[in-house]
Amino acid sequence: MKETIGFIGLGGMGLALATNLLKAGYGLRVYNRTAEKARPLLEHGARLARSPAEAAEPGGVVVTMVSDDRAVEAVTLGANGLLDRLGDGVHLSMSTIAPSTARRLAALHRERGSHYVASPVFGKPEVAARAKLWVATSGDAAARARVRLLQEAVSQWIFDFGEDPGAANVIKLAGNFLLGAAIEAMAEAFTMAEKHGVPRRQTYEFFTQTLFDCFVYRGYGKLIASEHYQPVGARPSLIRKDFGLILEAAAEGRVPMPLASLIHERLTATVAKGREDIDWAGFAREVSESAGL
Amino acid sequence: MKETIGFIGLGGMGLALATNLLKAGYGLRVYNRTAEKARPLLEHGARLARSPAEAAEPGGVVVTMVSDDRAVEAVTLGANGLLDRLGDGVHLSMSTIAPSTARRLAALHRERGSHYVASPVFGKPEVAARAKLWVATSGDAAARARVRLLQEAVSQWIFDFGEDPGAANVIKLAGNFLLGAAIEAMAEAFTMAEKHGVPRRQTYEFFTQTLFDCFVYRGYGKLIASEHYQPVGARPSLIRKDFGLILEAAAEGRVPMPLASLIHERLTATVAKGREDIDWAGFAREVSESAGL
Repeated sequence: MKETIGFIGLGGMGLALATNLLKAGYGLRVYNRTAEKARPLLEHGARLARSPAEAAEPGGVVVTMVSDDRAVEAVTLGANGLLDRLGDGVHLSMSTIAPSTARRLAALHRERGSHYVASPVFGKPEVAARAKLWVATSGDAAARARVRLLQEAVSQWIFDFGEDPGAANVIKLAGNFLLGAAIEAMAEAFTMAEKHGVPRRQTYEFFTQTLFDCFVYRGYGKLIASEHYQPVGARPSLIRKDFGLILEAAAEGRVPMPLASLIHERLTATVAKGREDIDWAGFAREVSESAGL
Repeated sequence: MKETIGFIGLGGMGLALATNLLKAGYGLRVYNRTAEKARPLLEHGARLARSPAEAAEPGGVVVTMVSDDRAVEAVTLGANGLLDRLGDGVHLSMSTIAPSTARRLAALHRERGSHYVASPVFGKPEVAARAKLWVATSGDAAARARVRLLQEAVSQWIFDFGEDPGAANVIKLAGNFLLGAAIEAMAEAFTMAEKHGVPRRQTYEFFTQTLFDCFVYRGYGKLIASEHYQPVGARPSLIRKDFGLILEAAAEGRVPMPLASLIHERLTATVAKGREDIDWAGFAREVSESAGL
């Protein structure tokens, strides 16, 4: 049996990650706002923590995977937050949050003698379930070394972005932006071709067998070609939050990102129309609809 | 020896195509506005035609690969144009032109009893030289069958888009648009990451080994990461012309394409600044410069 660690946040991604850590032999103290979600883990030997603080242990490791900046702050800094109990332990933070939030949290950890490692992941929940995520990580070098085996247990590849705790989150945001850009591009291209009589499926087949023979174009392209945005990898409102973070990071760095702004507006329209039962790639509908389809 | 065909247009792409056709055993009657460019072909047995009409032969095949819509019209319809001499032969048109121009030319060929096959290609001149282009083709089925072996001699893969002579050009324009979209996306992402302290090269390495492990991202991404836009695959002004065609086709089909408009403006700025000595992916500089880099 490997060491026992804390795990906070049991949404779709969190549950898949925690399950893989159990399988890899780690003991888990799990915390989730809705304790009900922990049940499958408890059946496999995890213990239930009644607060974020209870999930942490002095000198130990605690993983967080929650929905946004406020949620990370709440489980870290709030009353019964994990930071009060972490001692010189490590907080392995996997959520998609602002680089500036990661930097601020890292500073607060340093003040207390504990360590913050940023470790956002790429991949849908189904990829997480197969422990095939891609991980971007950054933060204090010794702390990164300490959690390396944990990261390996959930991923196929870890890329190290150095000491700045914000760097890995910059990369995560850049990645979600690149995905959105590919979706917008395919939506415009497939729609233009469709209105000229070329079926969306044909355009999809041609490009994913030639210039764009890669994962993202094949996967999201299939949804956009069929205009069937199921299953839901991530809801539009969740990724709209990420595009808000991208534009914040862009503003902070003084980088005009007109394409990021466009995608943010597409997601705003999608959310405004109440389309929360589809994958976020469904913002491609805004393109078809604007063309009268 | 295979049949002797006409070949019109000996720019970078045309010369590579004609060379491969000679190697494949075709006889060639070549025409270029500047006859000088034909010299390497003449040394390998091609004959020089003194007009587009002379390159054609009644019942034969004539290939055109010229820079834009006006140039195709000039060699086809002008005084001494190829159409006057083509009889019931086939015009294999490889240039990147408007779908509407292809449809109009096809109709004019039909009136004369000759055939127009659209056959735009994907790939840089170096890819053309290795006969590894990807071909999109459309037009009259019997005429397409007639030129199939010719297309195979210059390409690694041919995708058939049916009878509409405009369809293959729609796909070619969609492809150039998708390339431009990937360039804009990488430019914004790399620049945002750079201003947050992550070197462009690291961002490039991460994404081309994970989500975007494909040809286009690796190839253009390397130029954008290093900000060194050499060698010149295609000049900015040439691809700016294509984005004009994309927006025309979009307007004709009533498809708002905000991302295509953005890229068109980037290319306009690049051309306005006199940057014709770089690859068109160099419009990515507009992004860095707008961020004060």
